[in-house]
Amino acid sequence: MQIAILLYEHFTALDAVGPYDTLAGLPGAQPVFVAERRGPVRNDSGSLQLVAEATLEEVARPDVVLVPGGPFPAEQQKNPEVLAWLRAVDATTTWTTSVCTGSLILGSAGLLTGRRATTHWTAMDDLRALGVEAVDERYVFDGKYVTAAGVSAGIDMGLALAGRIAGDATAQTVQLMLQYDPQPPYDSGSPHKAPAELTARMRQEAGAPG
Amino acid sequence: MQIAILLYEHFTALDAVGPYDTLAGLPGAQPVFVAERRGPVRNDSGSLQLVAEATLEEVARPDVVLVPGGPFPAEQQKNPEVLAWLRAVDATTTWTTSVCTGSLILGSAGLLTGRRATTHWTAMDDLRALGVEAVDERYVFDGKYVTAAGVSAGIDMGLALAGRIAGDATAQTVQLMLQYDPQPPYDSGSPHKAPAELTARMRQEAGAPG
Repeated sequence: MQIAILLYEHFTALDAVGPYDTLAGLPGAQPVFVAERRGPVRNDSGSLQLVAEATLEEVARPDVVLVPGGPFPAEQQKNPEVLAWLRAVDATTTWTTSVCTGSLILGSAGLLTGRRATTHWTAMDDLRALGVEAVDERYVFDGKYVTAAGVSAGIDMGLALAGRIAGDATAQTVQLMLQYDPQPPYDSGSPHKAPAELTARMRQEAGAPG
Repeated sequence: MQIAILLYEHFTALDAVGPYDTLAGLPGAQPVFVAERRGPVRNDSGSLQLVAEATLEEVARPDVVLVPGGPFPAEQQKNPEVLAWLRAVDATTTWTTSVCTGSLILGSAGLLTGRRATTHWTAMDDLRALGVEAVDERYVFDGKYVTAAGVSAGIDMGLALAGRIAGDATAQTVQLMLQYDPQPPYDSGSPHKAPAELTARMRQEAGAPG
């Protein structure tokens, strides 16, 4: 089971690494980080580099594709190589997935048209503008298309996907291994819960990460 | 505020990237991934490489140090270069931190002796054996020493640390940006909650990641 994780300049690291660490240990999983070129790819904050070990051309038939988000999805939404690759691999994937604004990239490739999907809470209108039924859920399954809300939602999506792929007991084992028993010190993780002034300020700012 | 994140072969990626993405955006934060040698460092699963952009020698006085865990902490617990570096930088850090079995490495450097700290749930006895008061909490502050439980606990620790460093409102803003409103599809993230047979099996297996 080859799992292709797309990298591109300005991706958000946790979008990729959260689901990666829920899926990498599944029986038969062969994750591969892919990008237009092999080599280090720098993240949104600029201080982290993940290595792409294969080019898009070298990964032609992954079983699972995962598109992380980032604060500048438009750069990839207009990238013909990335969009063509997504369309090509989607023809044979078992699961086509994204985290955060990664769904805008899938949407721009035409893969989510008319489907239910989600994204970072600041980008719901952008997702809707792509002809997608944008829904405010932590993660959304619509057939083989699975999309997660902002950044950390990729961990929840990854566990749910692990359950679909390998069964509940295996997914629960992954959760126990990752000791994923979240206890956030604040309760500010969604626009429905955060202080209103923080939510309003972030909504106004362009380019929210994720 | 320089934040040094230690990399070494077989580290667990989420241990490093979870807290990284809670801290990287703080005002004045300058994260740097460090290792014995510059260049890509491969993780526990073998399919991910993060790039160390500085050597230990080049990062002599970080304000914050973060030690991720992994399934083979003993490799670093016996690594004289890493232990010497940790002792040296700890002399001037504001915060000395770890995730998962990273606390065993801090403990082997002698930095947690007699302190309250935590680790991956499978490694509590190993932590105790280092003269540490091992406590079953999601994350533990003892003075400037901050340790997190297994893997994903680094996100909770990172947010708590963000609050100490930059104030509650900034930490809440980070949480909202990361949309960290966890909704795990299973409730299996701790040995107190997971099915007993899964917990027992993992306890028996050596080298639990994290």
